[in-house]
Amino acid sequence: MKPVDDVATPALLVDLDVLEANVGRMAEAARSHGVGLRPHAKTHKTVEIAALQMAAGAVGLCLAKTSEAEAFARAGFRDIFLAYPVVGADKARRLLALSDSVRLSVGVDGEDGARSLAATFHAAGRTLDVLLEVDVGFHRVGVAPEAALGLARRVAELPGLRLRGVFTFAGHAYSCPTPDDVAGVGRSEAQTLVGVAAALRDAGLPAEEVSVGSTPTAPHAMAMAGVTECRPGVYVFNDASQVSLGSCRPEDCALTVLATVVSVGGSGRAVVDAGSKCLSSDPLRPRAGGHGWLLGRASRIAWLSEEHGVVAVAEGESFRVGERVRILPNHACVVANLADRLLGVRSGRVEAELPVVARGHVE
Amino acid sequence: MKPVDDVATPALLVDLDVLEANVGRMAEAARSHGVGLRPHAKTHKTVEIAALQMAAGAVGLCLAKTSEAEAFARAGFRDIFLAYPVVGADKARRLLALSDSVRLSVGVDGEDGARSLAATFHAAGRTLDVLLEVDVGFHRVGVAPEAALGLARRVAELPGLRLRGVFTFAGHAYSCPTPDDVAGVGRSEAQTLVGVAAALRDAGLPAEEVSVGSTPTAPHAMAMAGVTECRPGVYVFNDASQVSLGSCRPEDCALTVLATVVSVGGSGRAVVDAGSKCLSSDPLRPRAGGHGWLLGRASRIAWLSEEHGVVAVAEGESFRVGERVRILPNHACVVANLADRLLGVRSGRVEAELPVVARGHVE
Repeated sequence: MKPVDDVATPALLVDLDVLEANVGRMAEAARSHGVGLRPHAKTHKTVEIAALQMAAGAVGLCLAKTSEAEAFARAGFRDIFLAYPVVGADKARRLLALSDSVRLSVGVDGEDGARSLAATFHAAGRTLDVLLEVDVGFHRVGVAPEAALGLARRVAELPGLRLRGVFTFAGHAYSCPTPDDVAGVGRSEAQTLVGVAAALRDAGLPAEEVSVGSTPTAPHAMAMAGVTECRPGVYVFNDASQVSLGSCRPEDCALTVLATVVSVGGSGRAVVDAGSKCLSSDPLRPRAGGHGWLLGRASRIAWLSEEHGVVAVAEGESFRVGERVRILPNHACVVANLADRLLGVRSGRVEAELPVVARGHVE
Repeated sequence: MKPVDDVATPALLVDLDVLEANVGRMAEAARSHGVGLRPHAKTHKTVEIAALQMAAGAVGLCLAKTSEAEAFARAGFRDIFLAYPVVGADKARRLLALSDSVRLSVGVDGEDGARSLAATFHAAGRTLDVLLEVDVGFHRVGVAPEAALGLARRVAELPGLRLRGVFTFAGHAYSCPTPDDVAGVGRSEAQTLVGVAAALRDAGLPAEEVSVGSTPTAPHAMAMAGVTECRPGVYVFNDASQVSLGSCRPEDCALTVLATVVSVGGSGRAVVDAGSKCLSSDPLRPRAGGHGWLLGRASRIAWLSEEHGVVAVAEGESFRVGERVRILPNHACVVANLADRLLGVRSGRVEAELPVVARGHVE
């Protein structure tokens, strides 16, 4: 096992002790609330971390893309929810093939999309489980709460589909200025979704699954009675945005980028060998502010080009060429997606190489 | 050959007619100025497009990372310039191995970095060609013009290195509000670098290579007497930023993202299945403005999450679920880096799959 000091940079390091603690803590929180934990594996896209999550009691995996579901199905995962409004006959055929070996559910948020899936399953004499995506305020996808019952009726009537329940993603929590505001979004997210589920049941429609949660809102949303499932993703790694949102402490961050200082400019500038092709250009949330924090330093990465991270050197700090730094990225999910593998480290040594599967398959 | 209509989305399409025209046009411009063209292959990271550039008369490839150079060397490319201040003994050992089969040059912008390369080559009884990176105003890496001669003297004295010349990258052209300003940066870039080279020669130091150029500044910089080489990258594809900068026409853009509308919201919102894991979060240059243009539409992609592109639907336009759209991305180089392969298309059919090599190897 190679010492971390011998690893070529830039490299994506996963502190395995922190990772395991994060996995265990969220699993325990879900258990204590009697809620099923279905981690969003888009964050890491690694078989090993997904297996860790399952071993800690997860009920299955959440994913966003058909190609991700195919990759995890190949790796042996048997319960997958695609929290995405998958549409079209070509994707429907792939879902049909997937559902041979996987207990599969898929999101729907409109009648046209639902019909495009139903036709393929109905023609094959099969049934696809679907959950209705409800927009609780993020205004990305999802049916408005007041329109949910009407859509649920129409979806429930489509042969080839079986309505299993409702789900949501309260992404607007990422814009909240304070942890109290995040908590408020989490409570409101759950309350709205539980209310929609109750309306469906009152109308005689099925709503056995009531699935909420992002990493920031999970602790608040899964505390609400009536919630059956929670789908946080980034909690396994955490990142600078989660610290800024108050979702975790800096020491709860498992994923860092190891980089080397390659140039030291004259005027308060240092440059590291991690740029936007390693750190991504995703902004810090909830308020933009640089492109990554240097651990143990006040200096921040001020701007990026593809292979350069330009550090604004804080007063009193200095960097030397060849020096190695650890960077806490703004957004862990997009960083992991930029590498072929993550390096699992413990006690200063690389303990495991974790291949990032289902990346690069943009379709 | 599959019709483009049957391709799963999101997919990265390369219009081969446009690509070939772009490759030919830049090659002809360099030829007409008597300047060597060394395309920066980080833009496409495909062997096939690099081969097309070489066939059109390129003198070699420019790359940014040791891992990229290794991938292109494996594919048989024999003249590579790493336009990056590579530092450290581990990278130096890899460069040494590379230089067995490749005519290799590497950038240096400081004495410490240069020493870290020199030691390995000197110990092996070998010599590494280096070019001094000069900062002509971008303020990223590079030695200031007034300090270049001093650094050149110290680098030239290091056993294990051979100083071949100077290079620069005028990235500040990407902030220019008008094409005239871009042209001014290009002229100034070349003038400064030619001046530095003359000062080196006056001092008896070698400066046989004087290497300039980005896609926006290339036509202006390579027109200057004394310039020997030009290293544009994104011209093979172009993108929305190049159109905005005035470097090309919309019809000169070869790389587009094929996406499917997956959701149509109530209030002027449509969502496509290309998000930041496909389009990247790189901003439009020179002025930020959305995350991609929909071809043939006035609507723009207003914001992204990982697998969602949220379209602000322009007045008078509408979208339906299942409809396919073509997106001109802000920045082609980071988009190609997010996919395992590009699809070369001609006359509505997929003519070639172009594997993106040297991606995911973040080190």
